[in-house]
Amino acid sequence: MSNNTWSRHHILSLADFTTDEYDTVLQTAASFQEVLSRRTKKVPTLQGQVVANLFFESSTRTRSSFELAAKRLSADTLNFASGTSSMTKGETILDTAKTYLAMGTDIMVIRHREAGVPHAIAQEMDRLGVRVSVLNAGDGQHEHPSQGLLDLFTICSLLDPDLPRVELLKEKKIAIVGDILHSRVARSNIWSLTASGADVHLAAPPTLLPKLFADYCCENTPGKVFLHWELEPALQDADFVMTLRLQKERMTAHLLPSLREYHQMFGMTHSRLQLCHPNVKLLHPGPVNRGVEISSELMDDPEFSLIQAQVSSGVAVRMALLYLIGSGKA
Amino acid sequence: MSNNTWSRHHILSLADFTTDEYDTVLQTAASFQEVLSRRTKKVPTLQGQVVANLFFESSTRTRSSFELAAKRLSADTLNFASGTSSMTKGETILDTAKTYLAMGTDIMVIRHREAGVPHAIAQEMDRLGVRVSVLNAGDGQHEHPSQGLLDLFTICSLLDPDLPRVELLKEKKIAIVGDILHSRVARSNIWSLTASGADVHLAAPPTLLPKLFADYCCENTPGKVFLHWELEPALQDADFVMTLRLQKERMTAHLLPSLREYHQMFGMTHSRLQLCHPNVKLLHPGPVNRGVEISSELMDDPEFSLIQAQVSSGVAVRMALLYLIGSGKA
Amino acid sequence: MSNNTWSRHHILSLADFTTDEYDTVLQTAASFQEVLSRRTKKVPTLQGQVVANLFFESSTRTRSSFELAAKRLSADTLNFASGTSSMTKGETILDTAKTYLAMGTDIMVIRHREAGVPHAIAQEMDRLGVRVSVLNAGDGQHEHPSQGLLDLFTICSLLDPDLPRVELLKEKKIAIVGDILHSRVARSNIWSLTASGADVHLAAPPTLLPKLFADYCCENTPGKVFLHWELEPALQDADFVMTLRLQKERMTAHLLPSLREYHQMFGMTHSRLQLCHPNVKLLHPGPVNRGVEISSELMDDPEFSLIQAQVSSGVAVRMALLYLIGSGKA
Repeated sequence: MSNNTWSRHHILSLADFTTDEYDTVLQTAASFQEVLSRRTKKVPTLQGQVVANLFFESSTRTRSSFELAAKRLSADTLNFASGTSSMTKGETILDTAKTYLAMGTDIMVIRHREAGVPHAIAQEMDRLGVRVSVLNAGDGQHEHPSQGLLDLFTICSLLDPDLPRVELLKEKKIAIVGDILHSRVARSNIWSLTASGADVHLAAPPTLLPKLFADYCCENTPGKVFLHWELEPALQDADFVMTLRLQKERMTAHLLPSLREYHQMFGMTHSRLQLCHPNVKLLHPGPVNRGVEISSELMDDPEFSLIQAQVSSGVAVRMALLYLIGSGKA
Repeated sequence: MSNNTWSRHHILSLADFTTDEYDTVLQTAASFQEVLSRRTKKVPTLQGQVVANLFFESSTRTRSSFELAAKRLSADTLNFASGTSSMTKGETILDTAKTYLAMGTDIMVIRHREAGVPHAIAQEMDRLGVRVSVLNAGDGQHEHPSQGLLDLFTICSLLDPDLPRVELLKEKKIAIVGDILHSRVARSNIWSLTASGADVHLAAPPTLLPKLFADYCCENTPGKVFLHWELEPALQDADFVMTLRLQKERMTAHLLPSLREYHQMFGMTHSRLQLCHPNVKLLHPGPVNRGVEISSELMDDPEFSLIQAQVSSGVAVRMALLYLIGSGKA
Repeated sequence: MSNNTWSRHHILSLADFTTDEYDTVLQTAASFQEVLSRRTKKVPTLQGQVVANLFFESSTRTRSSFELAAKRLSADTLNFASGTSSMTKGETILDTAKTYLAMGTDIMVIRHREAGVPHAIAQEMDRLGVRVSVLNAGDGQHEHPSQGLLDLFTICSLLDPDLPRVELLKEKKIAIVGDILHSRVARSNIWSLTASGADVHLAAPPTLLPKLFADYCCENTPGKVFLHWELEPALQDADFVMTLRLQKERMTAHLLPSLREYHQMFGMTHSRLQLCHPNVKLLHPGPVNRGVEISSELMDDPEFSLIQAQVSSGVAVRMALLYLIGSGKA
């Protein structure tokens, strides 16, 4: 678990991650995965440090994953949830962050429904010249880097459990299916997968997949992005299929027909998997709307589903991120 | 604190508990009671293990008791409370449990308003072949085994603090008074007390005590169950009186007259205790509606009330249960 | 960090604090401030002890500060928040406190919207002859002693970081500006500052500053209290200005004109600071309504604002309080 080469202080976006950084995260996470298979799943790495989970938007699942990652590194954790907070009392978000800074927080894990909030907080911390790190746990429709990294780790450790690394993805075909337009998970994955050399095929109804996504990535990534307004061409020979969670609010906004129709057109089933590569695997960031994004039968089929592996990877990858940004604070 | 003979992996119900199992729980809890009297009330037994409290029905009291028990065994704890959770997002309960499993949970403590949910989750865990244990912290009107065991421990350690054991209950008379019909506490206590050889006298208005309770226990338990639609015969020479919490919702359902009338007919007072054995003690699972199930004066009388002792026993018994099911996971 | 001379068992009010007690708190907090500047900000002082935060009135900020203080002393923490609790189930507050006592709590940190609740709980604990300590974290409009002490520590450690002590305040002029009438922070600060020899100048509109405050302190304190219904005479040559949070509810009660008018009459700005001593510093208990109590520019000016220092002091002072009342429980 060497981090001699790690220099990134905040983790806000995957847009400018280098291949070396991806590989360092993957291999550090692999080491922690090994720790998690022991009886005592704990290391003293961050003892005496404070990780504050500032969740201005609620998410039990992601918050539990970060909390557990921090506890397994022996950090102390503080949980802040909007609603029960002084946010309702007229304080700005930066004021809240500065309060947690002043209490002695070392790492802030931030989720907010507005894009850019973690960046703004990180900027303010840098302006103040303090050593606290900011980790983006999902900002609006912008990015969710720890989810992108855990998906990458899930895929790469399936391909080589001993040495997960991005080059394993070269020329793989990966379909991302669902509400691309509103998905921070999709955006983070597009960055990591194309940088790793995979071709990413986006599939969604036109209302959820505007043409501009064709230009989403930088021109110099080895992998490319393709758009499909039908499911079939995206699935053709795909090595991995990532399905996205459908927010039911989208239907009231008339961006979607009924859930039933959506499932008929874009829902993953055993028969649709026939189009893919024989070893195809299925991912979903969770929680799944059973029978909408994925049929219930397929979701429970361990031959195809990586959904549980994604959750496990989540703890190992978040341990790796907290370790990499936290252990430099000597 | 030997648990060489302990083989039960989940704790879901007291219906099939053996006398040996009851005695093992009682004696393990007695050892932890001793730990709790020290200045440093902590042992490293479950260090590095994760206890997740999945409370789909809220209960600060029971959750705090389990959380403290886990922390005193040096486990890491995760709290999940419905409402703030992805349950509102369309995930099934089994999906939520599998998510916490995938995060690396070792013991799941589950409370749900529907009977059978902890059993269903335990079954699914067994089907998946994983080592995680399930502990029922109250399922609907069905069972609340840790409450039954802490009541048993409270009584038996009063009778012999050094060696609490079920045979101390032989031929004791125990009255259970109140809303038997809707009480999971009553059900769990009927199993443990009749198995221990005590005679259990149930007393409630007919609307809250249907005749079928006469057949509630297996025929081969040494203790028997008796039904009373009036309070006095149940109290006559009773050694212990367990009062149950009255849910105010029952009145809107016309199962009950006013609280005042209920207190006049079934409320415990100093004068009614005169009917009992001179050394009688009073229990209540809490929180008490003062002046309804018990008069305020009686509740605060340390000569008769075991209510505080029950809360203390709760932590020791829950430490014992977590220890017994957790320490086999080497 | 000697506490040989510390005999106070509960911390409920500053009204009867002695100069020696203030100095002990200040110097113990200074030692912990030093611990907090280390990489591993943790000491094993309260290992195996339980600190329960019983917040019948919600406050993320104060609760986080106490929680972090307890964790850095290696105590186990339990959080109770009204609303999710059995308080809604008809239990009295004393019953709730006795439940946490029976679970094995060593220190109860209590916040309640009614004045006197922490005192009532402390009295009950003493009546029961138990060793549990009660720490008032804010009771109604009465007192907020840990806030008063952290303000004192913030000021005294600015005046002498190596040896903060109350005599440094002799003949200093301190203005307290805002809603004095409803402020527990003001009441606690008046006690500590006048006992330390500072003169306290209260400034507020007459509706928020009744005449009786002139007699608020005991006659034998070295410092005196002065009342002003205009801001300027209070600021004249002031060494420190403490602003209070304005509760927006006060306006609906017609005690206040608009927020805009309030800011024009009593809001702190750079130009108003010109009236004060050239080295004046500004305090606020937080969260600040930007542009109401303090102008946004002034709030962010590190030359004058001690607001972040107050938050940092809060953790050190609360560690000191938990240590002083907790470490005698051997």
